[in-house]
Amino acid sequence: MAIRLRRFPHADLPLAAAAPPPSASTPSSQDELKRVAAHRAVELVQSGMVLGLGTGSTAAHAIDRVGDLLRCGALRGVVGVPTSEWAAARAATAGIPLTDLNAHPVVDLSIDGADEVDPALNLVKGRGGSLLREKMVEAASRRFVVIVDESKLVPRLGASRLAVPVEVIPFGWALTLRRLQNVFDAVPGFNLKLRAASTDAKASAFAEKGAEFEPFVTDNKNYIVDLFFEDGIHGDLSRISDDILRITGVVEHGMFLGLASSVIIARKDGATVVVNKET
Amino acid sequence: MAIRLRRFPHADLPLAAAAPPPSASTPSSQDELKRVAAHRAVELVQSGMVLGLGTGSTAAHAIDRVGDLLRCGALRGVVGVPTSEWAAARAATAGIPLTDLNAHPVVDLSIDGADEVDPALNLVKGRGGSLLREKMVEAASRRFVVIVDESKLVPRLGASRLAVPVEVIPFGWALTLRRLQNVFDAVPGFNLKLRAASTDAKASAFAEKGAEFEPFVTDNKNYIVDLFFEDGIHGDLSRISDDILRITGVVEHGMFLGLASSVIIARKDGATVVVNKET
Repeated sequence: MAIRLRRFPHADLPLAAAAPPPSASTPSSQDELKRVAAHRAVELVQSGMVLGLGTGSTAAHAIDRVGDLLRCGALRGVVGVPTSEWAAARAATAGIPLTDLNAHPVVDLSIDGADEVDPALNLVKGRGGSLLREKMVEAASRRFVVIVDESKLVPRLGASRLAVPVEVIPFGWALTLRRLQNVFDAVPGFNLKLRAASTDAKASAFAEKGAEFEPFVTDNKNYIVDLFFEDGIHGDLSRISDDILRITGVVEHGMFLGLASSVIIARKDGATVVVNKET
Repeated sequence: MAIRLRRFPHADLPLAAAAPPPSASTPSSQDELKRVAAHRAVELVQSGMVLGLGTGSTAAHAIDRVGDLLRCGALRGVVGVPTSEWAAARAATAGIPLTDLNAHPVVDLSIDGADEVDPALNLVKGRGGSLLREKMVEAASRRFVVIVDESKLVPRLGASRLAVPVEVIPFGWALTLRRLQNVFDAVPGFNLKLRAASTDAKASAFAEKGAEFEPFVTDNKNYIVDLFFEDGIHGDLSRISDDILRITGVVEHGMFLGLASSVIIARKDGATVVVNKET
């Protein structure tokens, strides 16, 4: 996949008309980095757009910013397609009118965070549990801009050792989990578990006393199985994706392959924009 | 796919011990043909088996028969894994103790009907709306025996012009439907529609007044999109299966490829057993 890299300091970018400029001071905290990336992405929003609204702490900054720009009149006629119940609630608070994919099957621009970004701009998403709706909205978008701080960059998907989520039907979930295990049977240090409703401690407790386990439930009323890799996912990601999707009971997985148009990476010394020339 | 054909008259087959023999008269009605096929399949059930219980009018005869054999003592210790809420209710009435895939991830034998059977023993199933649970249970089975009357035989899947069902997530269903359309864009006479809660008349009405449409909801709280072909599905079924499963929002489709161990076909002059040597 051919990628074009552009690196530029924060002050070089044009700002949306009539919008207050982002803080001129050097961003310090991780949340401040997320805010910088989110505001940079929102500069791509134009009046009248159908806008995909991401889920999570980075996307929150984008939603809030769009709300601000609508309120001050710098943007008009923007409607949002939320990728989760959470995003819908956040957008409502920010004052963004909402629509859905049935009314607007083509989305002009989506802005969302990611849990991992690899060098080919493949992503892991959905640690927040909203991978299916995110993938539907973002796959329906003419342009999908990912906003991350540099801690999300990985040499290959799964390499952060954090979860690669898979959404599964509750019926027969234990069998589906076993089949997911089979896909990665030859991978040293591979591990997987059903996500618990709140804390990881609950999931561990499940191994000992099954009856008390309360699974996490997605917006679509499904469960999440989290996959863990010691050294990330080696091999052909498209083939692995097909192997996962062929399992009856799997709804979708959190690998977003070839979907990102560009990634805005916030760093302490400015922002980097990486453009995927294939999308 | 290599297939071995055996054809034999009804009276040649051994009957389950202590079970009343099926009617000696020539089966006349379609329901009687279904009953003949179902009873033939139940002869494969042994005491102590974990048994997959199918959904539909043909499977109903098998469930009832197993219940009879348990009651009269010819079978003991059989537990059933139902493929639908309907099958669970029918089995409970018949007196078959129930379990599930989480408790019994390996099923000894599944018996179920099918909507279509092609010459390679690929199936279309799920017109009753239970395709996902059926596929999970039957894919988990050491042996999967299909019971049909001869009206279900087709030269290729979809050739009956009746529905090939696809289970989809309600969120963004219209976009998912559009993407399913894209998979078959080059197929003359292809058509598809969201299944209505009760009658086809409702689905037609939807085109005119969207608001009154009430979609069919599966046991997993999903929708069904029905695909219709004028001349069946030509081309590589595995590739088409992958193309469908890659659509975000698709949970599963009703093509059962390579899953059937054998098919028992009831005809007016007896029963034919077709064995799939590859399973």
